[in-house]
Amino acid sequence: MNAPDLATTGPGLPGSAAAPPRVAALDVGGTVLKGAVFEVGTGADAGVGAAGTGVRQVATLRRPTPRAEGADAIVAAVLDTVAELCALAPDVGAVGLVVPGVVDEAAGIGVESENLFWRDVPFARLAAERAGRPVAFGHDVRAGGRAELAALAGPPPTEALVMLVGTGIAGLLVVGGRVLPGAYVGEIGHAPVGPDEPCACGSTGCLETIASAASIARRYREAGGPVVAGSREVLAAAQAGDSRAGRVWGEAVDALVRGLAIYTTLLAPEVVVLGGGLALAGAALLDPVTAGLAARLTFQPVPELRLGQLGDEAGTIGAALLARDLLLAG
Amino acid sequence: MNAPDLATTGPGLPGSAAAPPRVAALDVGGTVLKGAVFEVGTGADAGVGAAGTGVRQVATLRRPTPRAEGADAIVAAVLDTVAELCALAPDVGAVGLVVPGVVDEAAGIGVESENLFWRDVPFARLAAERAGRPVAFGHDVRAGGRAELAALAGPPPTEALVMLVGTGIAGLLVVGGRVLPGAYVGEIGHAPVGPDEPCACGSTGCLETIASAASIARRYREAGGPVVAGSREVLAAAQAGDSRAGRVWGEAVDALVRGLAIYTTLLAPEVVVLGGGLALAGAALLDPVTAGLAARLTFQPVPELRLGQLGDEAGTIGAALLARDLLLAG
Repeated sequence: MNAPDLATTGPGLPGSAAAPPRVAALDVGGTVLKGAVFEVGTGADAGVGAAGTGVRQVATLRRPTPRAEGADAIVAAVLDTVAELCALAPDVGAVGLVVPGVVDEAAGIGVESENLFWRDVPFARLAAERAGRPVAFGHDVRAGGRAELAALAGPPPTEALVMLVGTGIAGLLVVGGRVLPGAYVGEIGHAPVGPDEPCACGSTGCLETIASAASIARRYREAGGPVVAGSREVLAAAQAGDSRAGRVWGEAVDALVRGLAIYTTLLAPEVVVLGGGLALAGAALLDPVTAGLAARLTFQPVPELRLGQLGDEAGTIGAALLARDLLLAG
Repeated sequence: MNAPDLATTGPGLPGSAAAPPRVAALDVGGTVLKGAVFEVGTGADAGVGAAGTGVRQVATLRRPTPRAEGADAIVAAVLDTVAELCALAPDVGAVGLVVPGVVDEAAGIGVESENLFWRDVPFARLAAERAGRPVAFGHDVRAGGRAELAALAGPPPTEALVMLVGTGIAGLLVVGGRVLPGAYVGEIGHAPVGPDEPCACGSTGCLETIASAASIARRYREAGGPVVAGSREVLAAAQAGDSRAGRVWGEAVDALVRGLAIYTTLLAPEVVVLGGGLALAGAALLDPVTAGLAARLTFQPVPELRLGQLGDEAGTIGAALLARDLLLAG
């Protein structure tokens, strides 16, 4: 236990036989382990929670990802946090755990993470042992993308891309009304769109070297700007007239447009949802990307661009939805 | 009728009650209208023909596409050729017609072709009127890609891209064992991979501005090389030590690798089939593209690359397969 790292919010969380079912959720990020306890809407309450996703957060628990300490320490921290969430709300009926990188959802294995260094970790089994409860295990972006789909107003789209832009960039692909499975599907953050900056994956020119929230902050610093916490500060500097920040932001927008143009040219989506932490920029992101995509496409139908509703909570809510589905199916 | 433009091969084609069923097929290309008459394999003969596709060519009829005369003349030439094919083999039971550009297969309409200038031509209806027979209408690349799939040895792949490289570049996408429909799906030739050369579509940096067979010939000329008929001559010059030709060929290979890397990163195909006229280059194309793709991909599983079996006959055979399916269903 690492008490000084914990931050919890919410009430004392007493359980009750009459209370709605609860689940715990943990989204393993590159900088923060985002845990939360959710109430699950059922029956008339099925549309509760953020943007009608059906789960309502009642407590959060966060701790820094001990990235500097390596893979074993990170995995241990993940399992500790799972146990802490269950201790915080003993009535949770299931746990949802989502992790980044290459994930074998069916086997319950984190196959590989470049950012968090692990290989072939049997997260589903380890977490179920620590939690003493059923664990739903998944990929952070696929889970977050499903949460954004659940949050979309109107009927579900038949052809869509949900692109989550945070520390990295990846997408949930909806083709023919079906979310494409596959551990290696949707890695749009590693589409080569140039310029040829080196990527953590070992290649060069990957979209996320220019346009992820982390890369925007890094490139601002490399352009001579101050060290900032994230892309939000770069956007604020750009809006205040800092030309270096404006150039870095503009290059990120151009790279996103290029990536979306490629996707549209291959798969002709009706809808593109821009989510993840970068989408918290709102119109400052949506407007130039929409204009840029419309200008770049020629014969291709221009997809409708929408902002995600869940920001950087998408992964946690997605994990909660996985746990809910497991709980209600069980 | 434009007799000097006609070239026919094959026997006199007498019909016979005992003979196998026949279909006519026409592939409308940017430079040539490729017509042919096929025998359709049935029962024990279902695997006849080129690479076991099930249709065996018994006559061909070609004429130049009157591209300089504009859309109306091209459409008239297409319909004339349909009539000539039916006159050549009066026993054909159905006609397959495939055209490039944006195609609404269900409505039977050629929506738009940048290369051949038409808009909203009801080809299916017009051709059926001229042929006096049922007409199966389709998109040249989708039809050709299906023919290449039919020609693949072994069980059909679940996740695949068939990329046809000829005058232009486009792909047939197999996702979850299903060929993706949609008039705007698979336009990988218009994925922006840079450098930013202008494309006929109005955009810049499209894959086909660098790597189509037509662009390879054009870029060799622009690099100071002689005027050549096509990419085959550029490859021959490169193999003979012409450094300009080598550079143009190498840039085409690099652009193809980039396009395939993008596709693999998004959709993780098991198999990529390289078809179309450029694939007639054989190992001179397959080997450097295979090596380049393996070098560029990092965490993504490298798809198996295969050469198409049908070269620039894929479209005609694909049209024949459409006609066969219509005939056997009717």
